[in-house]
Amino acid sequence: LVIVGKLINTSRKDIEVIIDERDKDSIQRIAKAQVEAGADYLDVNCGTRAYDERETMEWLVNAVQEAVQVPLCIDSANIEAVEVGLKLAKYGQPLINSITAQEDVFKKVLPVVRAHKAKVIALCMNEEGIPETGETRFITAERLVTDLTSAGVDEDDIYLDPLIQPISVNDKAGKEVLKTLRMISEKYPKVHKICGLSNVSFGSPNRKMLNRLFMVLTMGHGMDSFILNPLDRATMGHIYATKALLGQDSYCLGYIAAHRKGHYQGQV
Amino acid sequence: LVIVGKLINTSRKDIEVIIDERDKDSIQRIAKAQVEAGADYLDVNCGTRAYDERETMEWLVNAVQEAVQVPLCIDSANIEAVEVGLKLAKYGQPLINSITAQEDVFKKVLPVVRAHKAKVIALCMNEEGIPETGETRFITAERLVTDLTSAGVDEDDIYLDPLIQPISVNDKAGKEVLKTLRMISEKYPKVHKICGLSNVSFGSPNRKMLNRLFMVLTMGHGMDSFILNPLDRATMGHIYATKALLGQDSYCLGYIAAHRKGHYQGQV
Repeated sequence: LVIVGKLINTSRKDIEVIIDERDKDSIQRIAKAQVEAGADYLDVNCGTRAYDERETMEWLVNAVQEAVQVPLCIDSANIEAVEVGLKLAKYGQPLINSITAQEDVFKKVLPVVRAHKAKVIALCMNEEGIPETGETRFITAERLVTDLTSAGVDEDDIYLDPLIQPISVNDKAGKEVLKTLRMISEKYPKVHKICGLSNVSFGSPNRKMLNRLFMVLTMGHGMDSFILNPLDRATMGHIYATKALLGQDSYCLGYIAAHRKGHYQGQV
Repeated sequence: LVIVGKLINTSRKDIEVIIDERDKDSIQRIAKAQVEAGADYLDVNCGTRAYDERETMEWLVNAVQEAVQVPLCIDSANIEAVEVGLKLAKYGQPLINSITAQEDVFKKVLPVVRAHKAKVIALCMNEEGIPETGETRFITAERLVTDLTSAGVDEDDIYLDPLIQPISVNDKAGKEVLKTLRMISEKYPKVHKICGLSNVSFGSPNRKMLNRLFMVLTMGHGMDSFILNPLDRATMGHIYATKALLGQDSYCLGYIAAHRKGHYQGQV
């Protein structure tokens, strides 16, 4: 399971303040904490700062890489900011967040993916937006995999994001995503599946619990990567428990270690 | 989703005491509490009392039916005790717990199922015990469905129990059950799937949480009935949340009502 730590994002107020003050210690502390908690990648997103996004990306990537040696997930809709991040990324194979099946986006991002031999998150959306049903989402997924692999991108470097929508808006939204996951896993066993979790609960009560249980359900249907807050001990605890229940944890050793680290404290 | 309340079982110390004292008020209180908490059936099991099981079954069934008007799940390995319960059961269609693919058990229980037009829990075990893999479990499931339906039992009256084993003993135990569930759902969409939950966590830490998350996973793979403690608010909360996430809760109204009832208090 691949965990992308999501905390370094300027849409978060604390990160915005840290960047305004160029407070390197604080950003490095957040980077380290996420890696210690189990993040395999760190997402870096400063997209709220259109006025200095490239400069901020440069500062962030450098600051983070002084503190931790994990690959980064360069997260921006601005392809120039993505390139700034990729050029500086020096640990492992970076992940680009993201490409889509929209023709203009695809054409703009693909050359960057190829030039940097990066991994890439491919959002299952096209010109018409986010397809509603599992089947139509899967058609978009197929188009993304076909177009990326014909351009030379390895299946193992593709992370399809089915784009989870709120169940408060469409009560079949979760079900359709699970269907898409099964279809992707059957047709493309080497392609990865990734998502963020908070959308599913938008507009519903008890959001964190809903997010975690949807995470559990998606793992049961083949999701193998998440963009999440690894400092949330209960979320990480749910991951360890679910891996054990799904037979992905030899002798349940990861689960038992998580228990010893206190991931289940207060949960009865 | 069908919930069988499991609390009336003499393997529980409090129930044993209640029965010794023929404390009708207490047993009725437990019956009512389970129904109010959402139980569709109440399990009645006094199998630890071989010396007076039939008499106790009679007392229990009568006492419970004075308090609540739900169908009962008559739970015993002693076919005479099962018959005592079935003869007295007067609300809805009772459920027999259980038949197996073992020839002697099957031959003994089948006539009782037919005579009472009862629903029946069919455990996926045969002469060799509990099959290890998803595929061999499914073969036993097929045999049970074939033999029961050829004897005139409706598919809708069969509740297959895949028999969950502890992941502490076999770390693939959970995965294999999920596979069996998918295979059953594909071949027999009308047949129900039921299980108890506590076995999966036997020998592991944080058992309740593990049980609940396995419940969530099995729901994602088609489990539609559980034998559980409906007074555990977190468990019931997980059920409402999972139904909403799986598109089984129109406009998420059941989930929202559960929230208002405080099913998620203390969970963040």
